Amino acid sequence: MDKLGIDLHLDVGEPRARSIESALREAVTTGRLPAGTRLPGTRGLAEDLGIARGTVVAAYAQLVAEGWLVSATGSGTRVADVTLPPTPRDIPVRRVVDLRPGRPDLSLFPHGPWAAAVKRALAAAGTGSMDYGDPAGSRELREAVATYVSRARGVRAEAGAVVITSGFTHALAVLARALRGSGTIATEDPGLAHHRRLIHGAGLETAPLRVGPDGADPAEIPSRASAVLLTPAHQHPRGVVLGQAARTAFLAWARDRDGYIIEDDYDGEFRYDKQPVGALQALDPDRVIFAGSASKALAPGLRLGWLVVPPRLRIPVLDALAATGATVGTPGQLALADLLDRGDYDRHVRRARVVYRKRRTELAARLAELTEVPLDGVPAGLHALLPLASAREERRLVDAGLEGGLQLAGLHAAGYWHSAEGAKAGLIIGYGTPPQHAWRPALDALTEVLRGAEIAPW
Amino acid sequence: MDKLGIDLHLDVGEPRARSIESALREAVTTGRLPAGTRLPGTRGLAEDLGIARGTVVAAYAQLVAEGWLVSATGSGTRVADVTLPPTPRDIPVRRVVDLRPGRPDLSLFPHGPWAAAVKRALAAAGTGSMDYGDPAGSRELREAVATYVSRARGVRAEAGAVVITSGFTHALAVLARALRGSGTIATEDPGLAHHRRLIHGAGLETAPLRVGPDGADPAEIPSRASAVLLTPAHQHPRGVVLGQAARTAFLAWARDRDGYIIEDDYDGEFRYDKQPVGALQALDPDRVIFAGSASKALAPGLRLGWLVVPPRLRIPVLDALAATGATVGTPGQLALADLLDRGDYDRHVRRARVVYRKRRTELAARLAELTEVPLDGVPAGLHALLPLASAREERRLVDAGLEGGLQLAGLHAAGYWHSAEGAKAGLIIGYGTPPQHAWRPALDALTEVLRGAEIAPW
Repeated sequence: MDKLGIDLHLDVGEPRARSIESALREAVTTGRLPAGTRLPGTRGLAEDLGIARGTVVAAYAQLVAEGWLVSATGSGTRVADVTLPPTPRDIPVRRVVDLRPGRPDLSLFPHGPWAAAVKRALAAAGTGSMDYGDPAGSRELREAVATYVSRARGVRAEAGAVVITSGFTHALAVLARALRGSGTIATEDPGLAHHRRLIHGAGLETAPLRVGPDGADPAEIPSRASAVLLTPAHQHPRGVVLGQAARTAFLAWARDRDGYIIEDDYDGEFRYDKQPVGALQALDPDRVIFAGSASKALAPGLRLGWLVVPPRLRIPVLDALAATGATVGTPGQLALADLLDRGDYDRHVRRARVVYRKRRTELAARLAELTEVPLDGVPAGLHALLPLASAREERRLVDAGLEGGLQLAGLHAAGYWHSAEGAKAGLIIGYGTPPQHAWRPALDALTEVLRGAEIAPW
Repeated sequence: MDKLGIDLHLDVGEPRARSIESALREAVTTGRLPAGTRLPGTRGLAEDLGIARGTVVAAYAQLVAEGWLVSATGSGTRVADVTLPPTPRDIPVRRVVDLRPGRPDLSLFPHGPWAAAVKRALAAAGTGSMDYGDPAGSRELREAVATYVSRARGVRAEAGAVVITSGFTHALAVLARALRGSGTIATEDPGLAHHRRLIHGAGLETAPLRVGPDGADPAEIPSRASAVLLTPAHQHPRGVVLGQAARTAFLAWARDRDGYIIEDDYDGEFRYDKQPVGALQALDPDRVIFAGSASKALAPGLRLGWLVVPPRLRIPVLDALAATGATVGTPGQLALADLLDRGDYDRHVRRARVVYRKRRTELAARLAELTEVPLDGVPAGLHALLPLASAREERRLVDAGLEGGLQLAGLHAAGYWHSAEGAKAGLIIGYGTPPQHAWRPALDALTEVLRGAEIAPW
């Protein structure tokens, strides 16, 4: 099984469960793993790959549900005899409910209105709109985004400063390339491993900025860094807001050091207790690159994001964008511009906000029955962090979740920390993820899993 | 005006006229060039940038038409006093007819059917389809593409081998990164400068393969090269087909050298005199990476392309794709899958083929009245190359074209040649580009421009 271990090291996206799932699915569909092949045990494979056992269990469970693998008590998991590939959508899949963070409730995605927007926008667009077009994005969407982020997030933006990307991942790859003369980008600790990998892939190094109750610590910026990646409105994954003093200090650093701040405003529209904190970018549009996307407000499958770029960086950013070879298709750009211009985007965000706020409140109420330890961070976004006493307890809960039909994300196991030293444990509860009908059962199952858990503030 | 000259060095896409146009438009909209600023003369700027004067003239003309610039005889071209940015679609633009190659007649793009396909596909898709999804592409589109390229181009493909990209540009950026251990990719000479720049941007070198009447010459592959980029079905820009002996030799080289061939099948659906030559990939799917896109058959604005990747390259290609951070949005992928599955894509290609075949025939007939020199290459694709006696004559014709309301592409000036040594002159006539109503006037204008021209076989 050595070969399998190696082939599974597909490092192509977050979360890792999907990478393993994809790698296994491909290995089966291409015949690389013939029917009947016995897969390694979940414990052994998890150790080989250095990930949580629950992640492997979840991937196996999904592929069993899809019919690619068969599992029999006592004889382990084997590759199914699939002469004709099964079509997953035709199979009644018993999927465990996903409470991992990173995506909105996809059942809220407005399929009909999106298709209608494509139709309206294409009917209104001139023939030339289907040409290669401006690599920075269509004029319609750049104008609509500039108006939207100014209105909704207080960003200082004009259409000429907006660059359309295939979501934040693409934006970060572009920025890392544009900034690669810099050498090092400081990133939040804990923070998304996937973002660090993208930065490394562009030939840069990363350095950790420990995140406290007031967000990332500006005192930790190493002297070699010339850019910083932050989530100021709602830190991912801790959920805290970047404090006023830290904001001032980061901006002062950027001016003194001739550096840049990348503001990843991934869920800035979703704050439940008050008005969201305005964008850091407004305080210094020459030093802060603002990044947003439709991934949380609508759906990640749209692959639509945007940057508001300081004047001095525009040409390096457009050069880096050209080097990725990727721009976003016109129909999607024009449809999003249409929804933004009509106010439909805002209305959708408001409706979704009501749903998520209610879930957050219900989650907090349930937890209050179990523990006096509060969720970390402010009521905002689509996830909340519950601190745990140990990595062992985290593993136990993730495994117990799977047995109870829940996919849970462990903070310690999921690669958020730059290094094992000082890494803390917790559950990142993606309460925004389940479809509406599955939320209450998921909450019930979570409550059972957490009963008696060693929840403890860090 | 030194600053302008530097700022104009925006190298973000083909053709260059659009880069200059974009750079100028941005400079005006952002206020970097204030109202009233006098622009440099077209001749001087063309020399500064090392490009054809006609390219600069065309960019100025377009921006005058859009209202960003004003032009007065005797006093040159100045930045217009635009307090409110004009919306280009509201202005009656007097665009010169574009006879440059690289895109289809965009007026043929089926707006209504595309929007209907988005609607059908989203209605049929499960909720999970709007998630991040498989980075290699949606299962539906990978299956549809595998079926299509097998049927239409004789490619040996299964869904597991297909990777969806944001057009060929993205595909090439991904491949260059996946192959960057190789050091050098040999590319056709003449061939697209944009492709060489993408390869260089990934840290690789390029080496020229001179293109003769039988296509690229395999004897010229330098020993340091470990990959080759070819357009076997219809060489761009010469229009010749890769001969049988050359096909055999390239494949033998790939096997001996452990190398790869990238088959850029950019317009393989369009052959007018006989069945198109089948894909080279079918002769050795382990050595040939097949690349296609919807850019010529439907429209480049969709940004939808595909690769069929040999098994050994799949993981490197998926890693490289992840490093670009870009994947294609689900609605576009599902809509294309829908059109392919219903046969609508094939029907559209057949209809378009009739249009382009007729234009090619009319073009050849007109030229036959003017010269005995035939168009280079076979009757196929959306462009044809007319050889000229000198670069001076090429420049003269491009300038004369603009005066007659035509944008023409000069082979010598447009960066197709790896080096000035041995570079030949010609016009690459993109007969597929004009909208249907503009084709006949364009052909008339072209005939006038070419009357008395120094057309000469190389």
